[in-house]
Amino acid sequence: MLTTLLALPEKPSFQRFIIGVILFNAFILGLLTIQGLNENLVVLLETLDATCLGIFCVELTLKLLGQRLKFFSDGWNIFDFLVVAVALAPATGSLAVLRAMRVFRVMRLVTSVPSMQRVLNGMFSAIPGAASVAGVLLIIFYVSAIMATNFFSEVDPANFGHLGLTFFTLFQFLTMEGWPDIARPVMEKMPYAWMFFIPFILLTTLTTLNLLFGIIVDAMESAKEEEARDSLAGRGISMSPESNEMRLAIIEQEVRGIRGKIAALSERIDRG
Amino acid sequence: MLTTLLALPEKPSFQRFIIGVILFNAFILGLLTIQGLNENLVVLLETLDATCLGIFCVELTLKLLGQRLKFFSDGWNIFDFLVVAVALAPATGSLAVLRAMRVFRVMRLVTSVPSMQRVLNGMFSAIPGAASVAGVLLIIFYVSAIMATNFFSEVDPANFGHLGLTFFTLFQFLTMEGWPDIARPVMEKMPYAWMFFIPFILLTTLTTLNLLFGIIVDAMESAKEEEARDSLAGRGISMSPESNEMRLAIIEQEVRGIRGKIAALSERIDRG
Amino acid sequence: MLTTLLALPEKPSFQRFIIGVILFNAFILGLLTIQGLNENLVVLLETLDATCLGIFCVELTLKLLGQRLKFFSDGWNIFDFLVVAVALAPATGSLAVLRAMRVFRVMRLVTSVPSMQRVLNGMFSAIPGAASVAGVLLIIFYVSAIMATNFFSEVDPANFGHLGLTFFTLFQFLTMEGWPDIARPVMEKMPYAWMFFIPFILLTTLTTLNLLFGIIVDAMESAKEEEARDSLAGRGISMSPESNEMRLAIIEQEVRGIRGKIAALSERIDRG
Amino acid sequence: MLTTLLALPEKPSFQRFIIGVILFNAFILGLLTIQGLNENLVVLLETLDATCLGIFCVELTLKLLGQRLKFFSDGWNIFDFLVVAVALAPATGSLAVLRAMRVFRVMRLVTSVPSMQRVLNGMFSAIPGAASVAGVLLIIFYVSAIMATNFFSEVDPANFGHLGLTFFTLFQFLTMEGWPDIARPVMEKMPYAWMFFIPFILLTTLTTLNLLFGIIVDAMESAKEEEARDSLAGRGISMSPESNEMRLAIIEQEVRGIRGKIAALSERIDRG
Repeated sequence: MLTTLLALPEKPSFQRFIIGVILFNAFILGLLTIQGLNENLVVLLETLDATCLGIFCVELTLKLLGQRLKFFSDGWNIFDFLVVAVALAPATGSLAVLRAMRVFRVMRLVTSVPSMQRVLNGMFSAIPGAASVAGVLLIIFYVSAIMATNFFSEVDPANFGHLGLTFFTLFQFLTMEGWPDIARPVMEKMPYAWMFFIPFILLTTLTTLNLLFGIIVDAMESAKEEEARDSLAGRGISMSPESNEMRLAIIEQEVRGIRGKIAALSERIDRG
Repeated sequence: MLTTLLALPEKPSFQRFIIGVILFNAFILGLLTIQGLNENLVVLLETLDATCLGIFCVELTLKLLGQRLKFFSDGWNIFDFLVVAVALAPATGSLAVLRAMRVFRVMRLVTSVPSMQRVLNGMFSAIPGAASVAGVLLIIFYVSAIMATNFFSEVDPANFGHLGLTFFTLFQFLTMEGWPDIARPVMEKMPYAWMFFIPFILLTTLTTLNLLFGIIVDAMESAKEEEARDSLAGRGISMSPESNEMRLAIIEQEVRGIRGKIAALSERIDRG
Repeated sequence: MLTTLLALPEKPSFQRFIIGVILFNAFILGLLTIQGLNENLVVLLETLDATCLGIFCVELTLKLLGQRLKFFSDGWNIFDFLVVAVALAPATGSLAVLRAMRVFRVMRLVTSVPSMQRVLNGMFSAIPGAASVAGVLLIIFYVSAIMATNFFSEVDPANFGHLGLTFFTLFQFLTMEGWPDIARPVMEKMPYAWMFFIPFILLTTLTTLNLLFGIIVDAMESAKEEEARDSLAGRGISMSPESNEMRLAIIEQEVRGIRGKIAALSERIDRG
Repeated sequence: MLTTLLALPEKPSFQRFIIGVILFNAFILGLLTIQGLNENLVVLLETLDATCLGIFCVELTLKLLGQRLKFFSDGWNIFDFLVVAVALAPATGSLAVLRAMRVFRVMRLVTSVPSMQRVLNGMFSAIPGAASVAGVLLIIFYVSAIMATNFFSEVDPANFGHLGLTFFTLFQFLTMEGWPDIARPVMEKMPYAWMFFIPFILLTTLTTLNLLFGIIVDAMESAKEEEARDSLAGRGISMSPESNEMRLAIIEQEVRGIRGKIAALSERIDRG
């Protein structure tokens, strides 16, 4: 009986049921955003929400009992666990923010659908490769924020008054949204301010695009390679872990070696 | 006589004629947007529009009679059929929107020119691959919309008053258009609101770019491969349905196998 | 004497001199934009400008005499010719616009520096491939403009009053600049207007990105291939005009053929 | 003793110490942006900043003494040297800007962390290849600025009054930020002004994207190739300096040659 229960989370039908519960819970949480709902209705919706939460608790408990400590070796399980644990915290007064966190339960949809999980995996796997570009971007931001605060804090205290404000303003510059509305008044008092603004925009745009593209291209390539590996494995061809660049270089070397061997072979046959 | 008529839609000259009618119809529909036209002129233009519609009806009827049920197996035929059927609906009073739909007939230009049809085909064929990224984006949007409505509906009811408004506002954030004009007033009352806005912008920009690039790169690659296949087929070389990644892995494996065989061969010759 | 003159335009030193004259002319034209210049100075600058123009006339005449009708077979020569011819047109009164065209002479810098000429060539060569995507975009624009004029011309005549205004407004939507400032007031009167605006933005953004990427990737690939061809030609390896996709497919086929032949060979040796 | 000192900058522990000092200095410089700090605290912070500067001076002196003139053959060393030298300049009165430059010392973090240094190296190495696209963009900008100043300086002197203003306004157009707010008033007086604005936006967007992508793709490819080279070198396979395009062409040629040789070989065996 217990083993049947513990095997439940692996059953496709149960997984489909959980996805249904998540979708239903998402719908309930959407309804709860409506202002001035009938009080009875709110109570009903909250009860339904609590029921969904209860089902998740049961599901995770079963998983935890079934997998024991192995449960926590999967990042997605930890995410599921935290999301449900947060919802169990007492949700009164100052904990209203925590209560708002219950919406994250809808994110479980991503962890329940394998193809979406792959999308997030692809993005996460690109993070280490993107870390150094992100680091360069952060340093450029920090240096620029200090310079901008030093230069413009007196001219435009609303936007450059202290380091926090400047960071927000520079992020706004990075999105290029409304930057001339901030830059033009500053330039009226400090005509050479463009020597800060324009290089900043150019440099951060280039670095940000570099970062975004690095992540996206990495994610796409690893997805394609995984797909190719799966497809070839089904035909009995193992795919080495090399990148395309390396594969080409290896083929080039092999082909050269083959040409040399054939040349030697035909020479020997000629002589023999 | 009938067979000649039924073969008409396949004739290049007839197809050119239809393209001409579509272009002429587009021109008429453009003229009809002008306000305060002479009434007689409007009647004339409407008559010309009806004539174009009549020609399309005849064309589609011929096609339908010629291909029978096969007609509906081509998505573009269904599109053509719907576009013409909509125009035949009575266009009075509350059906003004349906009447406005007649402009879609101009879209038939895309279905009539093969190279443009290929462009749309490329985009459509990329949709399944992009579905899971789009799903992730939708979930992020839904979760963010509920959170933003809960957090900001009292502070800024005009932009975050209910879920519908929040969705529109968050879409505006995604396009990054005027986001500081919305974020700054909210941040005056809730200083930590940037902890929602900035991660939301970063996350959705990254996911959206991922989605757009996935679609575009997919569309471009399938176009290139189709081109390569056509070009090689003309030279008697058949192109396998593999991706470039797979092709490289296969070549690598083959080349290694060849090297092994040649080594064995020369050994045998040495011994023999 | 005449042949020496006619050979002049091919001499590197003369070409460098012409580039110098173009740069000097660009500088003069920049100075002439200054308002309220001393009248004598204006006369001097105009004289210098006329001198530059004279030099260009002589250069082009020499080229034309040297190459005869072959001169007009090169698009860049036609561009140079038109740019100088325009400058010779009488520049009074209503021809002020033509006079402003003389700035285009600075564009000759692009045609004089081979590496820049290659950049433009790359872009131009990508145009035919991009034509069908551009066509789709144009049709979407035209259909949307008619629909938007029909729907919104009464609600917002300043932005959607007639087809011309709508085209400009939709282009503004495409750049996503200030679109909520236009969409929100319209939506106050027509709450479902977002059903036009948001799909329009999504569809045109996707198509435009597709168009831009098609052009850029094409331009980059043809540049890389030309470079590779030049570099390999210097080492005595001729590069076939195939694309990478085709090359991979050809190699795959060849490698398979080689494996088959070697297998046959070793069989024969075994038997022999 | 001296040799121990001179070897210090190469020691990993010393390099980690220097990175720590840079981070600490960055933190100090951040604190110094706060307005109205206690005077004693400012003195303390300035002293700590001076101490950090002192440590950098010692570090660079050791490096300089150790490497002599070779020190200046590395661009990063020159950067480090300038950044520290600037900080030593007297920082009073009109030199306040120079004083502000001391924040650049934080940029040393980039030069101290190899993975970040590689990111910048990748970007710098892409500059020569991007120079001609940047040149084309500059020429388009210059020509457009002269034309816009000539056309619009009387209609909108605030934005197009002189060449400098126009350059700033056109850069704003390039970022597409608020361009309709500038274009619409101009178009009220000059209805055909869109014939300048829209082509300008299209042309510069395309060229800028071309430039940005050229840089990013170049940087990514050289990073990937370097990685592949390192990885293959560890397995004893040397990677030729060719591009992927060239490698494919070479393999194609080699494979064709091998097929020919094998065909000749089997013929000879048949005959022999």
